[in-house]
Amino acid sequence: MEFGEEDLLACCGSTRFAHELAKASPFSSLHEAIALARDVWFNKVDVHAWLQAFSAHPQIGHSPPSSSSSSSSSSSSSAHSTSAQWSKGEQSTALATATSSSLQELSEWNARYKEKFGFVFLICASGRSTDEILSELKKRYPNRPIVEFEIAAEEQMKITELRLAKLFSTKAKVSSKDDQ
Amino acid sequence: MEFGEEDLLACCGSTRFAHELAKASPFSSLHEAIALARDVWFNKVDVHAWLQAFSAHPQIGHSPPSSSSSSSSSSSSSAHSTSAQWSKGEQSTALATATSSSLQELSEWNARYKEKFGFVFLICASGRSTDEILSELKKRYPNRPIVEFEIAAEEQMKITELRLAKLFSTKAKVSSKDDQ
Repeated sequence: MEFGEEDLLACCGSTRFAHELAKASPFSSLHEAIALARDVWFNKVDVHAWLQAFSAHPQIGHSPPSSSSSSSSSSSSSAHSTSAQWSKGEQSTALATATSSSLQELSEWNARYKEKFGFVFLICASGRSTDEILSELKKRYPNRPIVEFEIAAEEQMKITELRLAKLFSTKAKVSSKDDQ
Repeated sequence: MEFGEEDLLACCGSTRFAHELAKASPFSSLHEAIALARDVWFNKVDVHAWLQAFSAHPQIGHSPPSSSSSSSSSSSSSAHSTSAQWSKGEQSTALATATSSSLQELSEWNARYKEKFGFVFLICASGRSTDEILSELKKRYPNRPIVEFEIAAEEQMKITELRLAKLFSTKAKVSSKDDQ
């Protein structure tokens, strides 16, 4: 299956990552795409690329609006819109289990986290409640910055893997429709 | 002994590091200053601070001119000038043992390193020949970016420790002169 840089940018917001992985496309399987993505992410791109990818995420508990941008013609806006929509989906359990006080506490801890580490708290939120996310944030907060930087990169990779799977299934549906 | 942010910025080019460490000044001894500096560097400042400190270094083998800036009135220029002068001293063995072909090779490897990792190759150069530095660069080049990021931070800390020692001995000389 073939993906362009824009598709891949919606999976991980580093332009260098998207560029490197697009060069390796087409992929024979999701398994192959994930293996290549892991290699690019952990071995090929530099720390600036990690920071760029982290900055593409909304603060957890604060999904950005994903409407109105579907009419945009710029490719990076389109990647951004897809990413925002996926982010909303990934946080659906958290949002369903949130109370206004837990969201308030999460927002305060997010701010403390960002102040200490210089980037947003990243966690693969799929299937996690707000309480679970908050407890992870508190557990990770005392970490040394370099340790937390690497944990955040591992979480980003988990998110990227889920999104690559979505990309594969979306493209498969489109091509099976085309075949009809 | 008391140091301001400007003194500390010449030891390590991260403004956040200099700010945090200056808050802990005065120091009862060099030993105490180094222990506090290590704590700030590894536990308190974020990865952006590390990158800022790295970017304050000249490419190894390319000492910047340290003249003319002593007349500058801005404090950051003064810190920069001190740092440039120290950098020249730290690289004196390397420069004394360099040939034009080894400098050329070092320059090429530096460029490859920066292209891969996104920051200059950092090594505590004191007492090391150009060949030793080049061989370290080649040995470290295959590292994963996150691994190399942490090694560079360790090297930065070694440089900071040497510079804190210089700062202590300079200030001690000045104050013993004042006593006469």
